[in-house]
Formats: sequence, structure tokens, C-alpha cells
Amino acid sequence: MSLTATKTSPDLSPIEHLLALASDDMAKVDTIIRERMQSPVGMIPDLAEHLVGAGGKRLRPLLTIAAAHLCGYKGENHYKLAAAVEFIHSATLLHDDVVDLSAKRRGKKAANLIWGNAPSILVGDFLFARSFNLMVETGSMEALGILSTASSVIAEGEVRQLAGLRDVEMSVETYMQTIGAKTAALFAAAAEVSPVLAGSCAAKQKALRTYGQELGLAFQLVDDALDYGGFEISLGKSIGDDFREGKMTLPVIIAYANAVKNGDSTALAFWKRVITHHDQSEDDLAVATAFLKSENALEATLDAARAHVKTAQSALDIFDDDAQNREWKTALIRLADFVVSRVS
Amino acid sequence: MSLTATKTSPDLSPIEHLLALASDDMAKVDTIIRERMQSPVGMIPDLAEHLVGAGGKRLRPLLTIAAAHLCGYKGENHYKLAAAVEFIHSATLLHDDVVDLSAKRRGKKAANLIWGNAPSILVGDFLFARSFNLMVETGSMEALGILSTASSVIAEGEVRQLAGLRDVEMSVETYMQTIGAKTAALFAAAAEVSPVLAGSCAAKQKALRTYGQELGLAFQLVDDALDYGGFEISLGKSIGDDFREGKMTLPVIIAYANAVKNGDSTALAFWKRVITHHDQSEDDLAVATAFLKSENALEATLDAARAHVKTAQSALDIFDDDAQNREWKTALIRLADFVVSRVS
Repeated sequence: MSLTATKTSPDLSPIEHLLALASDDMAKVDTIIRERMQSPVGMIPDLAEHLVGAGGKRLRPLLTIAAAHLCGYKGENHYKLAAAVEFIHSATLLHDDVVDLSAKRRGKKAANLIWGNAPSILVGDFLFARSFNLMVETGSMEALGILSTASSVIAEGEVRQLAGLRDVEMSVETYMQTIGAKTAALFAAAAEVSPVLAGSCAAKQKALRTYGQELGLAFQLVDDALDYGGFEISLGKSIGDDFREGKMTLPVIIAYANAVKNGDSTALAFWKRVITHHDQSEDDLAVATAFLKSENALEATLDAARAHVKTAQSALDIFDDDAQNREWKTALIRLADFVVSRVS
Repeated sequence: MSLTATKTSPDLSPIEHLLALASDDMAKVDTIIRERMQSPVGMIPDLAEHLVGAGGKRLRPLLTIAAAHLCGYKGENHYKLAAAVEFIHSATLLHDDVVDLSAKRRGKKAANLIWGNAPSILVGDFLFARSFNLMVETGSMEALGILSTASSVIAEGEVRQLAGLRDVEMSVETYMQTIGAKTAALFAAAAEVSPVLAGSCAAKQKALRTYGQELGLAFQLVDDALDYGGFEISLGKSIGDDFREGKMTLPVIIAYANAVKNGDSTALAFWKRVITHHDQSEDDLAVATAFLKSENALEATLDAARAHVKTAQSALDIFDDDAQNREWKTALIRLADFVVSRVS
């Protein structure tokens, strides 16, 4: 792949840098995505275009591409697997928006509010099935195993999250299990399928899986902090969604635990009312955010994310710093930093 | 497999006969289904048990088992594929009930009315993902290709049906395309994967695919007639669901076409009001059924089903009537008859 000086300009953010480095590959992935979301049933490409056309960071397929380069893979199947990963993610987003009754997705009105719940569910199913069509075409049964397992783990994570709604006493362990499944499993699988394609050793496969898993955990932790705003960043989604749903995330778990420890009856009564009893008024998001800030809960959540970023980065130590690897290894290390640094 | 006299008693209905013939196999399929619907997230097995435990005919996995015997398959992978087929079907049912706002499924309250829409969507996703785990374990990439393609075709069919809601002028062709995709594709795939496992010739694979496809069309045509009642049979689902949703099915297409041909302004006004404008009162289902009966639309729909049954049966001609085949071939032929004869 030829790289121009512009593509690797130091002025770019790490994700822009990685996207530039992978721009030729990502263009191929985009072509596959657009081809495979087509259907004679017009509502399918319309709705898929609404979601896919809105962009998104394409972080997960980017992991597949970067990991393939890092492993020295020379074939073409990583494009299909990257597209498959994005289809699984898109299917999950469509179903999540119905489950969460979301109003916004990627800065646009959520598809379920335009087309209704039914098309969002069914087009999600379509994209999910298409992702398996793509995997089959690669002929890699091992990649199929990794991505189908990730898919069932994601669904388990989503159900676990649902079962934990309004559970103000949720443990950190349950929360980490939940985000490990609903978010990190796909990051892990996206990174792991590439060494499988490349025929890399088991240790490298494990390293990239760990990188993906830890990056995914960091990503979700940051997302959960961002839901309470307070950071200068455009999210493309509504602030306070988690709070309004009564979703327990690390910031609230930390703040509630502190309230218990300090016997802060005002805070305890507040969290029980808004989470357990789901009795909220318009001002409560601001009150919640103030509690989180006074308990340093958002900063503590970002600290947890930073720790996972470090673990992700360390996992890449197994890869040599030779000329072939250096560029992609550096890009993945910087990307992990960026997941947290974008908010701090 | 040992068969007792009881198992093949002539007093059994064809589906009971086939179930008896395949009882040892279906017990193995059931074990796999129950094992693989487990999860540490309790809501998943609870909801899956509600649906799977309610029984259902297990018609689709039965096709996989019967086709495997007919092809002389001696391995064990047909059990896993049969379970995978039932998981795809179960996932579809869970999502359909949310899409259709169904009240009943298999004679029990639909899962979405007990647990809510969100768990039905997510547990459907879980079962769908698990179906691919099972397929991966068989190591048959060809079976994976057939079932993943069927899955995307099913989703396309469901969206096509949704897009055609309240379209009183739907053509027979569009309707047949819709049921061919939403229903028959899985019957076809369920029957086709077995000759693939057995390494049968392409002609036998095509024959079983045709058998499944045509049986599926007949099955859906009968189901669509049954939605307007008038037959002494327990459906385990509510009568009139299609009508209340404004779903166009062959009986209504026939009755509406006759009304157009005869310039029957009363009938035309009725269908436009209840379907196009979806303006219905409680008595309208009875009025609709009376219109369908006076136009022989239900009988014509069953005639169409009978024609597909004949095509299904003829497809099996390629299989010899030798001792090994006769039993299973006869069972499949009788099963096809039963799909229609159960209502007439």
C-alpha cells in the first residue's frame, strides 16, 4: 500500500491517522458494505443507508484491517471480515435503538423513530445474516467460530444489561461482565480474526484478542462517562440516555457506593428514587451529574478506562518493532490512547 | 435405528408417523436445543423455554432429519443442523411477535407480552447467533452458506411483507415472493443441508431443496387460509391476526380481484376500508370471512397449496424406492399431503 506524506501527517488525531493509513483498505471495506446492504426490497437499503451513511467511526472494521497488516496478512479476506464485523455492529445498533427507545444515533434521528420498530428489527436481522454470508465466503471456519461466538456473547451482554436496569446495587463485577460482553466482545473478535486469516501463532492471536477486548472495555467506560456530559465533545447521541433509562454504569455505581460508605442519606434517597423507582423529573440529570462530579465518579471511570488502555497496549509487546510492523503497531497504540484522551 | 410396531402404527397422523419414525433422532435434537439455549443470564433460558417448551411441531428440524435418512447419511452432524434450523425459526418467531404485536404463539401468551419487546428481540438475537455456533461445529461450510443465505432471505421476506401491509392491490406474484422468502426459504434450507452433509449428488440436493421450498409454500398458504378460521382445527394462535394487521394474503387477494372483476362496489369499499385505510370494527372479521367464503377464496387458496404439495412430492421421484429409502420417502410424501389435509 502506498502512503503519501499527507496521509501520515502528525497533525491528524490518532483515529484520523489510522484511518489515513488504512484509507485504501477502508475504501474496499466500504465498497463491500454498500454492495452487501443492497436488496430488491427497497426499505432495506434505505434504512441501512440511513445508519451506514451516517458514517460512524468504523472503529471495529479498522481494528480488523490494522491487525491484518500487523500480522503481515497478504490476502483479501480481511476486507470481507471487516465488513462482516461492521454489519454485526450495525445490526446491534438497530436492535439497541428499539430496546433502548433511543432518539438519536450518530447525530441523526434513530432509524426506529423514522421507520418504526419493525423495520429496525428486521433490517438488523438482515444485516446480521449478511454478515454470515460474508464470513462464509472467506472460507475461514475459525473466523466464523470467533464471530458467531462473539455474536451470542453480545446478545447475552445486552440481556444482562436489560436484567440489570434499575438495579441501583449492581456490582462493579456485574457491570464489567456486561460491558465485556455487549461491547468488548466484538472489538476482541474484530482484532482476533486477522491473525487467524494470517495464520499467525496462537500467542499473537491471543495478544490481538486481548488488545481488542481491553480497548473495547476502555471505549465503553468512556462512553458511559460521556453520557453524563461535562466533556467538550460531540457525541452524535443524546446526553443522559443511560440515566433516563435507569441504566447502571460505572459512574453511578461509584457514586452510589460512596453514598453508602458515607451514609449520605440525601444521595442514597436520590439514586433510589431515580434509578430503583425510576421516578425522574427534568432537573434530575443535572442533579445526578453534580453528584457524580462531587464524588469524582466520572474521573474515576476515566481512570479505569486508562488502565484498560495500558493493558491493551502492553498486549502488543509481542509484535516486533521492525519496519513492517512499526507503523501499524504505533497506530494501534496511539488509537488506544485516543479512546480516553478524546475526552480529557 | 430400531422401530417398534407402535411407532409406525397406521392410526397415526402423517406428522405423528414421521415424528415416531424419527423419535430417537428428535430426542437427540431436543437435547442439543435445550443445552444450547442455556446461559448464565437467566432471562435467556426462561424466555427460550417459554417458546421452545411450548413445543411446536418441530417441522423444520424434522425435515433435516428425514432428508438425512433419505440420503443415507451416517454421521451425527444432522442433529446439530436440525437444532440450528429450529433456533433460526425460534429467533424469527420471537422477532415476528414483536413486529406483528402478536397476542398468542403456540397456544401460549406471546413472549413479548410477558417479558416485553426488548428481551424478545435480544433472546432472538442470541438464538440466531447460537444457531451459527452449531453450524460451525459441523465443519460444513456449504451448510453454513445455505443457512446463512436462507436467513438473509427470510429477513428480506419479512421486510417485504411489512412494506406490503395494507396494500390491497398486492399481486399474487408479490405475495408468493413474500411467502417464498419469509417461510419457504427455511423449509428449503432445512431439507437441503442434509444431502450436503451426506455428500449426495447435486440432483438429489436440488430435489430436496425443491421439496422443502414447495412444502413451505403449501404450509404458508394453508396457514393464511386458517387465519380466517372456518376449519375445525386448533391453531394455537389467534384467528384473524392477519386481518387485523391489514396483512394481504392469498384469500384476500383472490376476493379483492373478484370484486374488481365483478365491479362489486360494496366488496371493494369494504376491502379498501379495512385494509388500505385500516379502519376496522369488531364485526369486520366475520364480514371478511363471509366475503372470502362467497368467493371460494379459502378453497382456492387450499387448491394452490395442493398444487405445491404435488410439486414437492414429485421432486422426491429421484429417490429410489428401495428398502432403505422407502420408509422415509413415504413419510415425506405423506407429510406433504398432511400439510393440506389437516384442514380439509
